[in-house]
This record gives sequence, C-alpha cells and structure tokens, in this order.
Amino acid sequence: MGSPTRKPTQSNSRLTADAYADGILKHDRIILSRAITLAESRLKSDQLLAEALIQKILAHTGKSIRIGITGIPGVGKSTFIEAFGKHLTAIGKKLAVLAIDPSSQRTKGSILGDKTRMDELARDENAFIRPTSAASALGGVADKTRETILLCEAAGFDVIIVETVGVGQSEISVRNMVDFFLLLLLGGAGDELQGIKKGIMEMADGVVITKADGDNKKRAKQAQADYQHALHFFPPSDSGWIPKVLISSAIEHRGMNEVWQMVDDFKTFTKAKGFFEHQRTEQNIEWFHSSIEQLLKREIMQSDSLRKKMETYERSVVNKSMTPGSASRKLVEDFFSSLPKH
Amino acid sequence: MGSPTRKPTQSNSRLTADAYADGILKHDRIILSRAITLAESRLKSDQLLAEALIQKILAHTGKSIRIGITGIPGVGKSTFIEAFGKHLTAIGKKLAVLAIDPSSQRTKGSILGDKTRMDELARDENAFIRPTSAASALGGVADKTRETILLCEAAGFDVIIVETVGVGQSEISVRNMVDFFLLLLLGGAGDELQGIKKGIMEMADGVVITKADGDNKKRAKQAQADYQHALHFFPPSDSGWIPKVLISSAIEHRGMNEVWQMVDDFKTFTKAKGFFEHQRTEQNIEWFHSSIEQLLKREIMQSDSLRKKMETYERSVVNKSMTPGSASRKLVEDFFSSLPKH
Repeated sequence: MGSPTRKPTQSNSRLTADAYADGILKHDRIILSRAITLAESRLKSDQLLAEALIQKILAHTGKSIRIGITGIPGVGKSTFIEAFGKHLTAIGKKLAVLAIDPSSQRTKGSILGDKTRMDELARDENAFIRPTSAASALGGVADKTRETILLCEAAGFDVIIVETVGVGQSEISVRNMVDFFLLLLLGGAGDELQGIKKGIMEMADGVVITKADGDNKKRAKQAQADYQHALHFFPPSDSGWIPKVLISSAIEHRGMNEVWQMVDDFKTFTKAKGFFEHQRTEQNIEWFHSSIEQLLKREIMQSDSLRKKMETYERSVVNKSMTPGSASRKLVEDFFSSLPKH
Repeated sequence: MGSPTRKPTQSNSRLTADAYADGILKHDRIILSRAITLAESRLKSDQLLAEALIQKILAHTGKSIRIGITGIPGVGKSTFIEAFGKHLTAIGKKLAVLAIDPSSQRTKGSILGDKTRMDELARDENAFIRPTSAASALGGVADKTRETILLCEAAGFDVIIVETVGVGQSEISVRNMVDFFLLLLLGGAGDELQGIKKGIMEMADGVVITKADGDNKKRAKQAQADYQHALHFFPPSDSGWIPKVLISSAIEHRGMNEVWQMVDDFKTFTKAKGFFEHQRTEQNIEWFHSSIEQLLKREIMQSDSLRKKMETYERSVVNKSMTPGSASRKLVEDFFSSLPKH
C-alpha cells in the first residue's frame, strides 16, 4: 500500500530527482510509492521536484494498457478488480491498481461496500495497489493520477487500472486518461441503471455484467443480450471498435479471461488503425489546454477579494440579474485591473 | 431575415441602449435584428452597448421554450424545421429560429442540402429566422447565441429553435443552452448512425425519424421501435424524463403535432419537478465559469510571444518530451512573468 500522506512540513524525507528516477527504473516499489506521494503533495517545492523526476523517466512511460473501471457502489468493483487482477498476474502481467481510498468510500456510507478491498491482490508480488484520496480523484488540476500512471509505467507495470469514484466529473476525468473504459453493471435487478450518469454507457469500450452466478446467472445473460442489442443502435466510436458486453462471476472465477481478451483485442484493433496512439495524443493535448484554463482560474481563486467577487457575480447569474457572459467578462476585467497596469 | 454583417468601422448606425430595448419590448423586428447584429459584433464598444441593452431587457426574458435541433446533413433539418415551424405558428406560437447560415452550409459542399432553406416559414409573420454564421456557431466565447435567445424572448417569441451546425463541439454547446434537445435521424437506411457523434443520442430528450413517407414509412416505423427499445436500456435523465422516439414526414405534413406535444409534455413534466428552471440555472452557472476560463486563456492568445510559447509547449506534449501538466504550469508561469511583478 502507498505511503501515508505526509504533512507539508516534513520535507526532510525527500530524495533527489535522480535517486527517485533510478529507483523507479529499477522497479523499486518503496521508491515508487514515495514518488507518487511526492507527486500528490501540494508543496510547491515537492511539485517541482516531482516534475523534474517525471521528466527523467518520461521516455520509459507509455508501454502499458490503461484501463478505467467504473460502476455504482454495490456492483462489486473491488471484487471484480481483485479477480481480474489475479488473472492478469497469473498470465504474467505486472498490474498497478489506482484505487478509491477505502476510508472515503466508507465515509460515503456504502453499506454494500466491499469489505475485503482487494487484500489478496495486495499480497500478490506482481500487483501494486495505490489508494487515491477522494479529494484528488475528483478530476481537476489537483488530481495527479496522470502523473501516477506515468510513474507506474516507468516502474515496469504493463497494465494500469484506474478505478473511478463515481461522483462528480470523475468518470469523464478517468475516461480522458485511459485507453479502455470499462463499465460494470448489475444484471437483471431491473434497476441496474440507477446511479449511472447519462453518457457513461456511450463512453464505455466494454461492459461487464457482474455477479453472474447461481440464481442470478440467467438474468445476467438476459441483461447481456439486451445491452449488446441496445448498444448496436448507438453510434460506433471513432476507431470503429464495437463495445462488447460480457458477463462475469468473481465468486465462481468466470469471465476474467474473456474480459482480458476483449481488452487485448481492443489494443490490437486500435493500434492497427493508429487510433491507440492518436487517442493518447488527443487526451494529452486536451489536458494541456484544460489545465491552462484551470490554473488561470485558480489564480483568481487565490485572491480573497476576487473570489468574493466571483461569488457575488455567480449569485447575480443565479438570480438572473446578470447574464453569465456579462458576469464573466466583468470578473476577468476585475482580475486584470487588480494587477499593475501593463 | 437578419441584417447583413456590418463592417467594424460602421458605428454610426448604432442606437442608444434604451432605443434598442424599447424597440425590442415593442416587438419591433427590425430593431431586434439590429440588436442581434450588435451582440455579434466584435467591436468592444458594440459589445458594451449590447451588454447594456441586454441588462435592460433581462427581466423580460425566459418566457419561452428553447429547443435545440441536430442531425446529419441530408436528414432534412430545414425541411423539418419549416414544417414544424408552420405547425407552431398555426397553433398561435411566435417562433424564432436561429439557423445555420446557408452560405456556410453550401460551402461545406452538401449536395443533399435543403435548397429552399425555409422560404415559406421566412414569410410567416409569426416566425423570425436569423442565420448564425458558422464561425460563431462553433461554441466558445465568440458565440452570441445565448444573447440572441434572450433578445428574441424579450421581443415576444415564445418558442426558440436553435439549429446546430453538427461540427466540433456545437451539439454540446447547443445542448447547454436549450431546454429540450431534439435529434433527427434517418430511418432504415442502415447507416443512419453514420456521422452522429458518440454521446449525442444520450443527450437527446427526443428523437424524430424523418422522411417517414411512401416506401420509407415501414422502415421508419421499424427504426422508431428499435430506437425506443434501445433507449430503454440507457439511464434516465436526472429529471426522470424518458426520451421518446417519434416519426415524421414533412412532405405529408405528419408528426408535427406529436413532436410539439412531446416538447410541451416535457415542459409540463420538468416544470412540475422544478427541473426546468434548475437546468437553466445550472446551464448559466456552467457558462459563467466556462467563459471565465476561456476569456483568461484568450488573454494569452492575444500576445504573439505567449501564443508561440503555447504552440511550442503543445508540440512538446505531442512528441511526449513534456507532460501536459508540466507544460501548462510553465505556460501559465510564463504568462504571469510577462506581467509586471505583483
């Protein structure tokens, strides 16, 4: 498991960028964990050090398949990831799982929460599990998951799983940093779509109906047929890849090979078309521009007076005494006026 | 039809904000057209005048239903809008249509383009058709469609139709400024999903299979059944509204009443739940924040040296010699460094 979050004042445990890089390239897990903690730190000096470190290992990244996994609480995400993960290590993969922080999940009050939280996989020497705190996992410039993916790749992991928290914009955020987006669904309860946000299904490259065991197996197979049929009526993705709907049972250890085969087929198919690399490039360009906008806006939020102005303008927008266009223009004008004339 | 685009130097034709506002509130079409042209002008003085004018009429806006309409070239968008529009004026509605500029559509080389482009509706005294130039219709802060909607509402129009250009981010942009998003599809040709971007179907509040006449009628009805069934397997919207799939034939004048009924039912349903107003408020808040980010970034683009730096950083991101996070941070730092110390 990863290092505990360090308080901002404890900077005496930092290595040099070269030391971090060397350790990572030698596949040293302890150093990898420390490097991830460094990347997640909010201290400016840590952020610059992390940037320098990543620059050094950048050429050794990218050689993996990045899989995003989402689904509502209760669908069995961690049970699935554990079973899937064990299959992957059994066939020789080195797997890194960037998982939802269990404490934040318990805080969300999920009675159905998976209590074991991948204990067995955590003991597998070919797997590395790193909890992501819920705060940083909500997307946005504070989220260092992209950097964590790069560090894991440089450390020799060839399958990276990113689990989403399922709130806010996290699915979109994860979709934009992975190659393959997998949606887990419950089958046959009738309310399996509850809690799934609109647009998520069309975002998925594959769907897995979980808990296809015992009495539920028949319902799961029906759901599989129904969803496969329904997806046929939705537009294909730019790559031409047609999303597949599979079933799985973690308890009965079934379906994991088929899921991996689907992911591997996707990689072969999309690499042949040049889409695989193209998608990664597009994701990077989009994140570059999106980050610029967020960083600029964060600058406004640093100033108490500007932040208060922003809140006042937002209230005017809400009570319709000002248009959003007018309010945004005024705030940006206030921002530039607050700087010396240039 | 609207006024021709004025060259930036012709400012002698401007009225006072009060004169524009009075004319609009008296439902004067000529003044409405001039006000829209003013809102679309890139001259700073025009933009400030437009803002002042809109502030004066803001309390008289909102009393309409805003409908976005999208579909691929050849689906018969303008034929549909004309038939639908004539039905609306026949039942006493006052309709404004913000339509794709025909010249830009012809430039796109659409052989299947609808040549008449709503001539009959244009002559209807209860309809107002305003072409939107393709450039401004691509979304972003240069797009003044939101302001145009407000002006039309203050001028007494109670149904506003916004037609999307179908390229880039325009569907998302239009979806975020309307109450009801309508997708037009061809039925039964087998390739009706070609050209529809992923996510658009899940964005739709209603779907209409067009050209359901003659030999095509049977295929259209089959497509209607298929899509209605498929949509059932996708998550409901936050409002609980279940999208409907209808068929229409502009030529045989059928289906228009049902489409209006669906839109009207949507309005009743979502107003009862408070969702209608909530959605508009959320759209305004989102546009406020999105505009702030875009305006800040535009500031960077104004400077030649910063724009060149941005392009250089973007190239580094593309060739993977720099992470997007690092590149964005550096550019924003360069931006603030280019300003005097504060």
